[in-house]
Amino acid sequence: MEKEISKAVISRLPRYYRYLGELMEDGVERISSNELSQKMKVTASQIRQDLNNFGGFGQQGYGYNVKYLHTEIAKILGIDRQHNLIIIGAGNLGQALANYANFKKHGFVIKGMFDINPRLIGLVVRGVEIRGVDDLEKFIVENEVQMAALTIPKTKAPEIADRLVKAGIKAIWNFAHVDLVVPDDVVVENVHLSESLMRLSYRASSLQDQKKKEEKKKR
Amino acid sequence: MEKEISKAVISRLPRYYRYLGELMEDGVERISSNELSQKMKVTASQIRQDLNNFGGFGQQGYGYNVKYLHTEIAKILGIDRQHNLIIIGAGNLGQALANYANFKKHGFVIKGMFDINPRLIGLVVRGVEIRGVDDLEKFIVENEVQMAALTIPKTKAPEIADRLVKAGIKAIWNFAHVDLVVPDDVVVENVHLSESLMRLSYRASSLQDQKKKEEKKKR
Repeated sequence: MEKEISKAVISRLPRYYRYLGELMEDGVERISSNELSQKMKVTASQIRQDLNNFGGFGQQGYGYNVKYLHTEIAKILGIDRQHNLIIIGAGNLGQALANYANFKKHGFVIKGMFDINPRLIGLVVRGVEIRGVDDLEKFIVENEVQMAALTIPKTKAPEIADRLVKAGIKAIWNFAHVDLVVPDDVVVENVHLSESLMRLSYRASSLQDQKKKEEKKKR
Repeated sequence: MEKEISKAVISRLPRYYRYLGELMEDGVERISSNELSQKMKVTASQIRQDLNNFGGFGQQGYGYNVKYLHTEIAKILGIDRQHNLIIIGAGNLGQALANYANFKKHGFVIKGMFDINPRLIGLVVRGVEIRGVDDLEKFIVENEVQMAALTIPKTKAPEIADRLVKAGIKAIWNFAHVDLVVPDDVVVENVHLSESLMRLSYRASSLQDQKKKEEKKKR
């Protein structure tokens, strides 16, 4: 697929992918943009525009071929192939990721887990042994690891990220509350949980303020 | 503060808040937009525009008052007051949230944890007892809980969300991989981890594709 697809569309793709996957599980073979619109609470015209990027929709009156679209979106997202992943930090969050069975379904295979806590090293989570970080680089090369999730404190994250990059990791899923500095050919996706919680707090507070204002007006 | 602040600015506020907090920890009292720009890898003009929303910056040559800005941003984000939070789902992810000491620092107090797994009920995490969900509504009212984190499977999430809303919860931090349907006066902030991982996969894949193209051109 050679056509450029906009950032906004890309950011919506995982959600389409999820709904199409659920439809497939329910045995649905095709769906109209109106039906999909009702399910996803997005306008039908937005759906048509977004999915136009993929060409593969049926004629008027047929609707979308669910499996075809699901496959095409998977290709775009790069989840039609296997990604070898390691998790650095085997605390609760790291273990939560390791236990997330869905990842494997989407081609993300957890090859190893690492920690510096001697009490965790040697434990096995979902068939994956927790190792110390001494042989991190060797492990990455031998197991053709492309991605790493960082679930360690922010004080340790930059140093580990440097080691990962030098060992050839091209994608870092960063849960540490710090902005990592990496070369241009490495991508970082941040999940900053406390920032997400602050956005929730902001939205809840501003909704309350709005309500108070409206109540004042009514009096 | 009566002035409307744009969504884009709001989404950047938690990051400013984090950097200003770190500066305070380092004993920095004021900082110029150029210095902040270098630290945050954002242009100085973006910083000036964003922070103009808060009025409180010093004269030319003085720079920003770190503590003042930090306080003002906290007010906007609604984290200058206490938020009572419960966590539904005491598995690895729920426990990871409970162990996140930073939340308390920002005014988020975890009042209770809930699960349906009898092996977890009665355990204590960071001083908070894990309870069954039978008395969920009563607990919410008695403890003036305003926010709930949902770290349960997507099949259970809609039913629990309904109960939360009926009991008066106005803000849901949703980690379940499903879109919740809630009334207009309730806000939901989604953290869909597998969608985040797909975005990482997309960005890594498209960077690779780009590189291959460039190498082809060079030949």
